[in-house]
Amino acid sequence: MQQAIRIMGVDPGLRRTGWGIVEIVGNSLRFVAAGTVRSDDRASLAARLCQLHDGLSDVVRDHMPEEAAVEQTFVNRDAAATLKLGQARGVAMLVPALAGLVVAEYAPNAVKKAVIGVGHGDKKQIHMMVKVLMPKAVFDTDDAADALAIAVCHAHHRQSVPARLAAAQAGVGA
Amino acid sequence: MQQAIRIMGVDPGLRRTGWGIVEIVGNSLRFVAAGTVRSDDRASLAARLCQLHDGLSDVVRDHMPEEAAVEQTFVNRDAAATLKLGQARGVAMLVPALAGLVVAEYAPNAVKKAVIGVGHGDKKQIHMMVKVLMPKAVFDTDDAADALAIAVCHAHHRQSVPARLAAAQAGVGA
Repeated sequence: MQQAIRIMGVDPGLRRTGWGIVEIVGNSLRFVAAGTVRSDDRASLAARLCQLHDGLSDVVRDHMPEEAAVEQTFVNRDAAATLKLGQARGVAMLVPALAGLVVAEYAPNAVKKAVIGVGHGDKKQIHMMVKVLMPKAVFDTDDAADALAIAVCHAHHRQSVPARLAAAQAGVGA
Repeated sequence: MQQAIRIMGVDPGLRRTGWGIVEIVGNSLRFVAAGTVRSDDRASLAARLCQLHDGLSDVVRDHMPEEAAVEQTFVNRDAAATLKLGQARGVAMLVPALAGLVVAEYAPNAVKKAVIGVGHGDKKQIHMMVKVLMPKAVFDTDDAADALAIAVCHAHHRQSVPARLAAAQAGVGA
């Protein structure tokens, strides 16, 4: 029996951070879970970052992913919005890293290419393809769907280095 | 004997995050410690955020501050630099918040006003005044000196609400 690998995708945002867990066994993808961590916009910034930290820590504890991936944010908004996103993204990358997971980063067009086959397309197409790839997938928000797409992207890219990975695993086991 | 209050100031940056601890007893300020947490720029972003997290967690554990303060970053650089700073700032605010500390934010001109008496001035003037206010202060980098200035700023501002604070403390004790 082939070993299953669990991947956590994260789509960070201060108000809503989407997360999605997928499992790969050989070449097949399986949906495990997805959801959204929210922060209370009436709370202080530090308190909101704690809420994101706690929510994502629960996901890591409950679903025990082995690898994580986050989208490389495309920043074209104002500086204040970019700073806000950066703060949420810092916490979103820190949580899996503290749990010992390697956190990969992918450009938005790499995520689109992995899911819909080309490097451009809108959110609707991405969400539709997430459902085609994993018919059992359920997601409560666009952020959760995007997080699943990021996890799918990582599943595609990590398969391109199986020999190196197997060698590394053999090294660890030796 | 008046109770001493320990304040941690933080000047976040991905490459170098400065920190400074001061103590206030009544109206007097005392330097406790200051330093710089560095991240390895050859490591992955997630690993660097872990390094900042671990370094700042050590400071909180070793010096047990009761309140924390961070400067409200003035963002006038490019989006990539702002995102990078935001990620470091997210971790810098998260660490004291996870330890149960309230994390105050101050605008750069509030920090300058608290330390040099006016809302403008260069880094040299700030560092000189930190030494005037706390002759025993030692700092290894500009970031550590800035972190001390932020802690001094919080020491000034928190004194303006002693009645409210005392009431809140009485409420907690009741």
